[in-house]
Amino acid sequence: MKTIHFIAFLIILCSTTNVSAQDQNIRQYGIEIGVLEPGPLNSITDVGEVQVGHQTMIVGNHIRTGVTAVLPHPENIFQQKVPAAVYIENGFGKLAGSTQIKELGNLETPIILTNTLSVPTAADALIDYTFSFEENRNVRSVNPVVGETNDGYLNDIRGRYVTKKDVLTAINNAEDGVVEQGNVGAGTGTVAFGFKGGIGTSSRRLPEKMGGYTVGVLVQANFGGVLQVAGVPVGKELDKYYLSDRLNESPDGSCMIIVATDAPLDARNLERLAKRAALGLAKTGGIASNGSGDYIIAFSTAEENRIPYRATEAVQQKSVLRNNRMSPLFMAVNEATEEAIINSLFHAQTMTGRDGHTINELPVDSVLKLMERYER
Amino acid sequence: MKTIHFIAFLIILCSTTNVSAQDQNIRQYGIEIGVLEPGPLNSITDVGEVQVGHQTMIVGNHIRTGVTAVLPHPENIFQQKVPAAVYIENGFGKLAGSTQIKELGNLETPIILTNTLSVPTAADALIDYTFSFEENRNVRSVNPVVGETNDGYLNDIRGRYVTKKDVLTAINNAEDGVVEQGNVGAGTGTVAFGFKGGIGTSSRRLPEKMGGYTVGVLVQANFGGVLQVAGVPVGKELDKYYLSDRLNESPDGSCMIIVATDAPLDARNLERLAKRAALGLAKTGGIASNGSGDYIIAFSTAEENRIPYRATEAVQQKSVLRNNRMSPLFMAVNEATEEAIINSLFHAQTMTGRDGHTINELPVDSVLKLMERYER
Amino acid sequence: MKTIHFIAFLIILCSTTNVSAQDQNIRQYGIEIGVLEPGPLNSITDVGEVQVGHQTMIVGNHIRTGVTAVLPHPENIFQQKVPAAVYIENGFGKLAGSTQIKELGNLETPIILTNTLSVPTAADALIDYTFSFEENRNVRSVNPVVGETNDGYLNDIRGRYVTKKDVLTAINNAEDGVVEQGNVGAGTGTVAFGFKGGIGTSSRRLPEKMGGYTVGVLVQANFGGVLQVAGVPVGKELDKYYLSDRLNESPDGSCMIIVATDAPLDARNLERLAKRAALGLAKTGGIASNGSGDYIIAFSTAEENRIPYRATEAVQQKSVLRNNRMSPLFMAVNEATEEAIINSLFHAQTMTGRDGHTINELPVDSVLKLMERYER
Amino acid sequence: MKTIHFIAFLIILCSTTNVSAQDQNIRQYGIEIGVLEPGPLNSITDVGEVQVGHQTMIVGNHIRTGVTAVLPHPENIFQQKVPAAVYIENGFGKLAGSTQIKELGNLETPIILTNTLSVPTAADALIDYTFSFEENRNVRSVNPVVGETNDGYLNDIRGRYVTKKDVLTAINNAEDGVVEQGNVGAGTGTVAFGFKGGIGTSSRRLPEKMGGYTVGVLVQANFGGVLQVAGVPVGKELDKYYLSDRLNESPDGSCMIIVATDAPLDARNLERLAKRAALGLAKTGGIASNGSGDYIIAFSTAEENRIPYRATEAVQQKSVLRNNRMSPLFMAVNEATEEAIINSLFHAQTMTGRDGHTINELPVDSVLKLMERYER
Repeated sequence: MKTIHFIAFLIILCSTTNVSAQDQNIRQYGIEIGVLEPGPLNSITDVGEVQVGHQTMIVGNHIRTGVTAVLPHPENIFQQKVPAAVYIENGFGKLAGSTQIKELGNLETPIILTNTLSVPTAADALIDYTFSFEENRNVRSVNPVVGETNDGYLNDIRGRYVTKKDVLTAINNAEDGVVEQGNVGAGTGTVAFGFKGGIGTSSRRLPEKMGGYTVGVLVQANFGGVLQVAGVPVGKELDKYYLSDRLNESPDGSCMIIVATDAPLDARNLERLAKRAALGLAKTGGIASNGSGDYIIAFSTAEENRIPYRATEAVQQKSVLRNNRMSPLFMAVNEATEEAIINSLFHAQTMTGRDGHTINELPVDSVLKLMERYER
Repeated sequence: MKTIHFIAFLIILCSTTNVSAQDQNIRQYGIEIGVLEPGPLNSITDVGEVQVGHQTMIVGNHIRTGVTAVLPHPENIFQQKVPAAVYIENGFGKLAGSTQIKELGNLETPIILTNTLSVPTAADALIDYTFSFEENRNVRSVNPVVGETNDGYLNDIRGRYVTKKDVLTAINNAEDGVVEQGNVGAGTGTVAFGFKGGIGTSSRRLPEKMGGYTVGVLVQANFGGVLQVAGVPVGKELDKYYLSDRLNESPDGSCMIIVATDAPLDARNLERLAKRAALGLAKTGGIASNGSGDYIIAFSTAEENRIPYRATEAVQQKSVLRNNRMSPLFMAVNEATEEAIINSLFHAQTMTGRDGHTINELPVDSVLKLMERYER
Repeated sequence: MKTIHFIAFLIILCSTTNVSAQDQNIRQYGIEIGVLEPGPLNSITDVGEVQVGHQTMIVGNHIRTGVTAVLPHPENIFQQKVPAAVYIENGFGKLAGSTQIKELGNLETPIILTNTLSVPTAADALIDYTFSFEENRNVRSVNPVVGETNDGYLNDIRGRYVTKKDVLTAINNAEDGVVEQGNVGAGTGTVAFGFKGGIGTSSRRLPEKMGGYTVGVLVQANFGGVLQVAGVPVGKELDKYYLSDRLNESPDGSCMIIVATDAPLDARNLERLAKRAALGLAKTGGIASNGSGDYIIAFSTAEENRIPYRATEAVQQKSVLRNNRMSPLFMAVNEATEEAIINSLFHAQTMTGRDGHTINELPVDSVLKLMERYER
Repeated sequence: MKTIHFIAFLIILCSTTNVSAQDQNIRQYGIEIGVLEPGPLNSITDVGEVQVGHQTMIVGNHIRTGVTAVLPHPENIFQQKVPAAVYIENGFGKLAGSTQIKELGNLETPIILTNTLSVPTAADALIDYTFSFEENRNVRSVNPVVGETNDGYLNDIRGRYVTKKDVLTAINNAEDGVVEQGNVGAGTGTVAFGFKGGIGTSSRRLPEKMGGYTVGVLVQANFGGVLQVAGVPVGKELDKYYLSDRLNESPDGSCMIIVATDAPLDARNLERLAKRAALGLAKTGGIASNGSGDYIIAFSTAEENRIPYRATEAVQQKSVLRNNRMSPLFMAVNEATEEAIINSLFHAQTMTGRDGHTINELPVDSVLKLMERYER
C-alpha cells in the first residue's frame, strides 16, 4: 500500500535544529524596520493566545520538509470559530479552505503550513484533529485550512513524506512564547531570494491612543525578487537577484503569510488587513512572480467576537473597529510582514538536500557590513 | 495506521445500480425544458472528447457514497491543459483547486466529485494520477481539482471510506458515450429537494448560425428549496419544500456543477458562462441556501486553445469567441443545468443508508400526472 | 446654476401616467409567487423607513426616460450611513459607486436609477444633494451611487435630457407608502422580454420564528430571455422570446435590483443576499445576457447598525445575524425579486417613443388566460 | 452649449508651470531604481502609440486642480477597443467604469484623471468625446473611465470647477513624446507623503530575450506613508511621516496608476500586471491607508489584439503571452511604478492654494544629500 510509510521509523524529528550563528532577529543587530514598536516577543504569539508548533523533517539526503501549525487559540476552534479572511496576491498555489473562509468570514481549524504536495494529507489530518474532540462527535463537515509552498528543490517533494501524524504532532507542539524560526517546520526546505528561507515572525504593537492593538505575522518564505533589507539593496550588492546578468535566480516558489490581531475586526476589514501584508512583502523585494503563489490569511482573536458553532441567539452582538481606525493597523502589518520575512532569512542556515542540492544561508556578516556602509 | 482500510475487501463496487423504473430522462417522457435542442446524447459527453467515470460505493448499512470523474479529454491533461474558470455561487464548501484555476485560467487534472470529507483523499489521488504519466516524471507541482457535496445523511461520512484507489477507478472508468445518472458515483448518497438526488447530465447544441457549439452540464445534486419541474410547482403540490408548515425540509447540502463547451472561450468568458449555470439551478427552485456550497467549474475543449505545459513559443495564437456572441451560450448553459438537475431526480432511486435513514425517490408517476394537469 | 437647461420648460413632468387597466400587481389577480407572505404594501417601502420617489419624463416624441430614487431612510444619509453591498451579476453597465460600497461596506447617498448616459448627471446631482445639508458643509468626498439601464430604443438617450434638477426632484418626491410601478421614473422607457418593462416592487415578511424580518425589492426591468410568469411559459406561448425562430428578441438591456431589509446584516451577508436576488431574476426567464448589465445593491436599515460619519468611539457595537439564519432571507429575496419583475410588466403600458418605436404592454388578459389554463 | 461657464474666462490655463529647479527625473541625478532599463523617454509614452494630455487649472487663490488624459492610441477608441483590466488596491474612491472593464475585458474611451468631485463631469465629457466621432453616430452606450484623487486641501474641490471643456482640452492636448510631470493636469493640487505630489511617469523595456516588451506607468500621486526613495528612509530622516511623534501626517488621499504595455496580454494577465503595480507603490512607503483609494488600470496596445466594435467574424484570432513569461513584466511594472511616484515628487513644486494652505515641495537638495550619505 502506498499509505504505509515504511521509512517512517527512519525519520529523525528535529524540532530544534539551530546550531550556528543564524540565531538572531535582525532587530537584535540594532537594525530597525519601520516606525512602530514590536510586541514583547516580536512574534505572532504576542497576539492573544495564538500558538505555533513545528514538525521539522530532515531525513537522509532527500527529505527536507515539515509542518507548521498556527492556532488562533488553544481551545476547540471548531466550536469557537474566529473571524477570518483570505487575500490572494497570486493564486498559483494550492491553499485549501479559502472559499469557505471568504463566504462565512471565519476559520474553524488550526492553519497548517506544509509543502505543496502534502496539502491533502494535512487537510485530512485536520479532519482527524477536529473529530478528536468529543464535543465535535456529531460534526460532519469541516473546512481544513492548509497553505503551502514548494520546497521541491531541496526536498524530495514527490515522495510526499509528510504523514497525518506529522501534522498532528505540529499541532500538539503548538505553544505560545518564542517561535523558532528559519529551517523549521514548513520552512525546513524553502528558498528565498536565492538564499535559504524558512519560517519567520514579527509583530507590532500600536500606541494606546491608537487602540493598543497588536498585529503579529508569521511567514513561510519561499520566493524571490531583488532582496532589500531595510531598504538596502542587498540582492544587488551580493549580485544575487532575479534578472541579474550573472545568473537568473528564479523568483518563483511562493510565500504564505499568516496575520493575527487582537483588534476587533470583522471579515471585511481582516481582508483589507491581509491585503496590506502583501505591501510588506514588496518592501523585501518580492514581486509576486508568476510562479509564486502568495496568500495571506488573517484572523482576529478578539474574544467577544468568537463565533460559537451552536448558539441559541440568532443575532450576535459584536464589537467592530471603525474603518477610519484601520490605517495604523495597515502600517503595523506592513512592517511586521517585512520584518518577518527578513527574520526568516536571518535565521535560516545553509542546507543540503535532494540530489546534493545546496542552498546557502544569507551571509549575515556581509549583510551587516552592507547595512553599516548604507548607514543603517 | 489510519490509512489502512481493512474493510476495503467488503466493498461491493456497484457501478450499475439502476434496477427500477427511474431510468429515463425527463425528456423521454415528452417534457421539454427550454427552447434549444439537446446534443445527441443529451449529456456532457456530447462535448468534444469529454469522458465521465463513476465509482459507486454501497456497502453494508452505512456506506452510501462514491466518486465521479470528469475528464476534459482522454490525454495527459497536465501536459495539455484546458482553459477553465470557477464561479462560486456559495463558497460554503471545500472545493480544492479553485484559486489556481482562477489565477492561471486553466485546468490541469481531471475534475473529481466526491463527498465532503473525502476531498483530501481525492486530491492526493489526483497527484498519484498525474505522476503516473511517464511524461510528468519531473513535475513537482499539481493542482488537483476536487468538488464535493455532503452525503452525511445517508452515508457514514465520518468514516471517510473513499480510498485513493476508488478515485483512480472512477478515472479509469471514464468513457465517452451515455453517462449513468442517479445513485451513481458522487451522487450515490445525495439528497435534493427532500428526494433522492444524484448525478444528472444534459446538453444543448446551438444552431449553426450561432456557431453550432455544444454546452454540456453534469451535476451532483444535493441541495434544496422549492422544487419546480419545467415551471410546475412540484414541491408545493407534493407538500415537500423548504419553509413549508408541515415539515421544514432543509435546503442545505450543496450542488456541484461541471460545464463543458467546445466553444473557444477564454477564462474570462468561461467564468461568465459558469455564472449563468447558477441561473439554471434557480429555475429548479434552488436558493443557494446558507449551507449549500454551490460551485460551477467550466472548461473549453477547443483543441486549438489547449495550453501545453512546455512550449518554446512565448506567445500562443488563440481563437477567442467575441463577447457579443455569448448570449446563446448563456441560454444553453441555463437550460442544460436546469435539465441536468431534474434528470438527476428522475434517475435517482429510493435509498436507505446510515442509521436506517431513508430518502425516497421522486415519485415520477405523480410528477408526470402533475405535469399533465399543468399542461406540460 | 451652472447649467441652464433651456429646454426644461418644455418638459411635461408626468408623475402619474397610469390610465389603463395595467394597474394591478399580479397578486391582485390571485396569482401567488413563492411560499412566503408579502409585507403590508408588497413593496420595498415595507422595510424600515425606506422611501421611493420618481421623476417621469415624457416629452414630445422622443423623450421617454426618468429618474427613480431609493432612500434607505429619510435623514442625512451621509451622516448616518447604512451597511450595504453590491453584487454584480453582469458588469456590462455603468453603475457609479460600486467599489466604495464594496470596500467600506456602506452606502452614503440615496440610490438613483436612470438611463445609461445620464449616470454622470445623476452622480453630480447626488453631490449637490449631499452638500445641501448644512451638517455636511465640510464634506469634500461623496460616493454617489447611480444605477442605470439603457432605454435607448424608446428614448432619445443620446440627448441626455435628464438634468440635475430632475434627479433632485425624484429625491424630493421620495416617500414611504405605495410605490408607483410600470412606466414611471427610471422605468419610463424600459423594455423587458419584448414587452414594455418598467419599475416593479415586491416584499416578503418572514414568520416571527424566523425573526420577522422584511425584505423588499425594487427593480428597473429592462432585459430579456424567455418569460415565465409563476412558472408558466408565457414567452413561448406568446411566441415572443429570445432565440425563437419567428423573431430574435434581444435579451439585452439590463436589470437594476435594489434590495432592502431590516434584518441586521453586515456587508458580507448583504452581498450574499444580493447574490440570491439574481436567482429570482432567473425564475422570470432572464439569462443575464451579454449585453444585460445586471447589478444588485442591498442595504440594511437596522437602526442600531447605522454608521455615523463622525464618532468618538473607535469601536462600534453591532448586531449581526448569524450565517445559519440567512436561508429564509435568501428565499425571501428570491421570491420578492421574481414578483417585482413580474409586477413591472403587469403595470407597464404600451409606449411609443423615439422614431415612432412602439413597445406593447404585456397582454395581461391573455396572460391571465394562460395562467388559468396552466392551473395557476 | 448646455453649460455656460461664466468663470471660464478667468481661468488661466497653465499647461507649462515648471519654473523652478524641480525639473528633473530622479534618474537624471544618477539615482537608479530597480534592475531593468527604462525606455527611451522613461515615460508611459514609450509604449506603442500611447498619448498623454494635461489641462492644468490654477486660478485665483482657490482653484488648484486639473485633468490628465491617457489615450491608448490616437484613433477612435470606441471602434478599436483595447484589452484592459482594473485592480483595486483600495476601493475607497470613485473610479468610473471599473465594472465594465472587468466584465468585458476592454477599454473603450480615453482614461481621464481629475479630482474626486469632478468625476461625473469628466464622465459626461467622455460621452461627448465619443459621440464627436461621426463613425459613432449610432452608439447609445459608452463606458467612460475616470479616475480621481482628492485635492481638497489645496483646491476648492467643492466648487467643482472642472468643466467638460477642460476635459476635452486635456484630450486634445494629448500627444506622444515627453510627458510633463509634477503640478500639471490632475496632479496640480495633489499631496504625497506630506510634500507636493503630482503627475509622474516612468517606463521599463525588457531585454529582447524576454520579448523586448515595454511597460509604462503614469501616476497621480496623492497619498502617504513613510517615504522611501530608492530604499533610503527619506521620510524618517526629514521627520515627516505617518505616525511620527512630531506631527501625524495623514496617509490618505489616493493614488491612481495607469499601466500600459505593448506585450500581448489578455485581460486576465493585465489584471495580474496591474496588481503588481501596487507592490511598486509599497516600495515608496505607501500603505494603501484607509482613506487612500488606490486603483490601477492596465491596458495592452498590441495592435493585433484590438477589439473592433463591429466585426463580421464571431471568433477573433489573438496573440496571448503565456503565463510563465509574465514575471519579467511584473518586475518591470513594479520598478516603473516606484520610479513614477518618485518622479512626481521630484517634479512637483511648492504650491499655495485654498485658504492659504501651502504644501512644500520635496527638498530635492536635501534628499540628494541623503542619497549620497546612504550610498546611492
